[in-house]
Amino acid sequence: MTTPHCRQLTCEVISIGDEMTTGARLDTNAQWLSQRVGELGVTVKFHSTVGDTLADNVDVFRIAAARADIVVATGGLGPTRDDLTREALAAVVDRPLEMRESAMKHIESMFARRQRPMPERNSVQAMFPVGSDEVFNPQGTAPGIDLAVDRTGKPASRIFALPGVPAEMKRMFDETVAPRIAAMSGGGSRIRHAVMKFFGTGESDMEQRLGEMISRDREPRVGITVSGATISLRITATADTDETCDAMIAQTRQEILRLVPEFYFGDGESFEQQHAIEARLRARDESLAVIELGRAAVLGDWFASLGDSPAYRGGLSLATRNDLVQMFAASDFSDAVDQVRTKFGSSWVLLVDAYPALDVASDTPLPAADVKILAIGPDGKKQPFELTIGGHPDILHARIGKSAMAWLRELLN
Amino acid sequence: MTTPHCRQLTCEVISIGDEMTTGARLDTNAQWLSQRVGELGVTVKFHSTVGDTLADNVDVFRIAAARADIVVATGGLGPTRDDLTREALAAVVDRPLEMRESAMKHIESMFARRQRPMPERNSVQAMFPVGSDEVFNPQGTAPGIDLAVDRTGKPASRIFALPGVPAEMKRMFDETVAPRIAAMSGGGSRIRHAVMKFFGTGESDMEQRLGEMISRDREPRVGITVSGATISLRITATADTDETCDAMIAQTRQEILRLVPEFYFGDGESFEQQHAIEARLRARDESLAVIELGRAAVLGDWFASLGDSPAYRGGLSLATRNDLVQMFAASDFSDAVDQVRTKFGSSWVLLVDAYPALDVASDTPLPAADVKILAIGPDGKKQPFELTIGGHPDILHARIGKSAMAWLRELLN
Repeated sequence: MTTPHCRQLTCEVISIGDEMTTGARLDTNAQWLSQRVGELGVTVKFHSTVGDTLADNVDVFRIAAARADIVVATGGLGPTRDDLTREALAAVVDRPLEMRESAMKHIESMFARRQRPMPERNSVQAMFPVGSDEVFNPQGTAPGIDLAVDRTGKPASRIFALPGVPAEMKRMFDETVAPRIAAMSGGGSRIRHAVMKFFGTGESDMEQRLGEMISRDREPRVGITVSGATISLRITATADTDETCDAMIAQTRQEILRLVPEFYFGDGESFEQQHAIEARLRARDESLAVIELGRAAVLGDWFASLGDSPAYRGGLSLATRNDLVQMFAASDFSDAVDQVRTKFGSSWVLLVDAYPALDVASDTPLPAADVKILAIGPDGKKQPFELTIGGHPDILHARIGKSAMAWLRELLN
Repeated sequence: MTTPHCRQLTCEVISIGDEMTTGARLDTNAQWLSQRVGELGVTVKFHSTVGDTLADNVDVFRIAAARADIVVATGGLGPTRDDLTREALAAVVDRPLEMRESAMKHIESMFARRQRPMPERNSVQAMFPVGSDEVFNPQGTAPGIDLAVDRTGKPASRIFALPGVPAEMKRMFDETVAPRIAAMSGGGSRIRHAVMKFFGTGESDMEQRLGEMISRDREPRVGITVSGATISLRITATADTDETCDAMIAQTRQEILRLVPEFYFGDGESFEQQHAIEARLRARDESLAVIELGRAAVLGDWFASLGDSPAYRGGLSLATRNDLVQMFAASDFSDAVDQVRTKFGSSWVLLVDAYPALDVASDTPLPAADVKILAIGPDGKKQPFELTIGGHPDILHARIGKSAMAWLRELLN
């Protein structure tokens, strides 16, 4: 089942379920798996999605095993009659299904733990094609299947079939499938990741400045993804020990920080600018309130979600400056902002004036417009920042909120 | 190119681009197209995604044309060397590409309209496989391609290749591709849609109560989709005239309202509960402010986005009841809420107490917890509603906000 070290391995990702082919559900598993598999130095060449029909599943698995060295499939491993992945795999290698004792014990123990009797139909989840291996599922009753499919003239293709539930699938991939793929590529069986986050520039500018850093054959690999104008760089190192991986990652981090120091704000997949701001405020023993004018209030939701923190006091959203002045019976706009700082008892106020209205039904980018950002610090000084911004309605409000946070971060440094 | 009326047509959706196979971008086109194609009574059996490699594209199109009656592809129609769909299609039918004058004129006019010179390379976008038809693109320079691929023993497979830009792709599908598919199925060339929105029950309960209404072979078809616990029913009628379509839709709407009257809140793809509330408030000449306590502030953003409306006054978000009392130097919680109503000058206040904290990095459902909703009306009466709610962290805050809106809608009826 091993392949020579030097060969560039290819992969196909398969998603199984009528809910995807009918469009009832958006498939996010294929994207996640493509990123993870790519980080291991394996080229994902195809995705395929197929409904809950046995003949179609057999076809899709046959085509995939013929054209890809590694196949990672999700879905079709549940206990119902719709779940056909076990049968399809058995048909692909023309071998029967057999009961796997270890899997049966695990399924029984999952029901025992939940203090529920095991329905008879769940025993089908312990059936495996003869000659396949188990992929342990610590969170659910559906074990995964690891099956080699012989091919004439080239090494066997390796199929990993995982459940479609994202939480189960992700953990099984990281814990079991990724090390097995890394072993196939010969790059060492330990895999370590680090994620660095950036805001303030576009993807193509970032790619240009990083140059060779994001080349596919570099070690460790650096992957770039963008979500709502926030850029994530994910560093993946494979080696024989965690220590070697970590040393490789540390050096790559240094190089990245040398190339693009100014847009970096922190580390970790779910680390956002509000977390960076919260940490800075805590370190300074200060706090923040936000005022959002216009047709959105994204900062209020993001900061509220920080969890119990003395650094965030609350948020206020209103349509216009005039509404703000009226609400506090203030003498003018400046007085109203000062009053907000007093009422919320915060050292800082961050104000967005104003989010533009979006036509929610439209996919058309909005023309650039001026947005005023105002940060009021502990000394009461009002520091303005003007933004000219347009773009796709899906992310325009988020980009404005994030630009406001970038301005506040600059003042907090 | 026509197929007999009675045959159940099948479809494959193809997405083209390295940005999808590497996982850099999430493919949402395939889901959108699957819904639209399904509404026309055609069964989508497969999705395939392929990178920017000619041989792989040719393979994917060959497999698709062999196993599906209709193929809808997106991507690969730009002017750069990465854009290979034209070449791939020519290879599939083994015919050369030829310059199409009408397409060339359109591309030139698009550049003339933007007052920019046309780069030489854009002329490649006017190249079509011999024997193919154009799919007009009113918004961009990339025309689509409509190509029949002959098959032995069955009718030709029909490939529609569209650009990957969602706004262009969607309009071209609705305006040109959908009528051509409807003509293939023999159901009449006019297509009309209606979308009804529901909140307050789960997808499976909805399916059970709708029964035969959502059967695939019913006319007009009713499709069900769920987004953040809001259920959309999309009715699609095809007939020879718009009037016949509309009459069919009207009757189906009546039947649906008879089966599930209590969760319905309005019509239209982007119509949400906040729009229903805004309309009710305007009709009553009343207005609303929201208070959100805890670890989210989703209502503030949703209501702010309504656009200039006298019916929404603003939102306030704070961590705890105690913060609210302190902010207004109130005697107690009840007094603080009254003061908010006065300060915002609103007839109603809707309060959520409180959104639970989420572990953002986790995919694990949260256990059910109590959340208190409070609505204060024009008469100052405080009307409480208690919710016990848990579930997936991705949508839990949204579900709580939507449940609060459902409570307010009830009081406004």
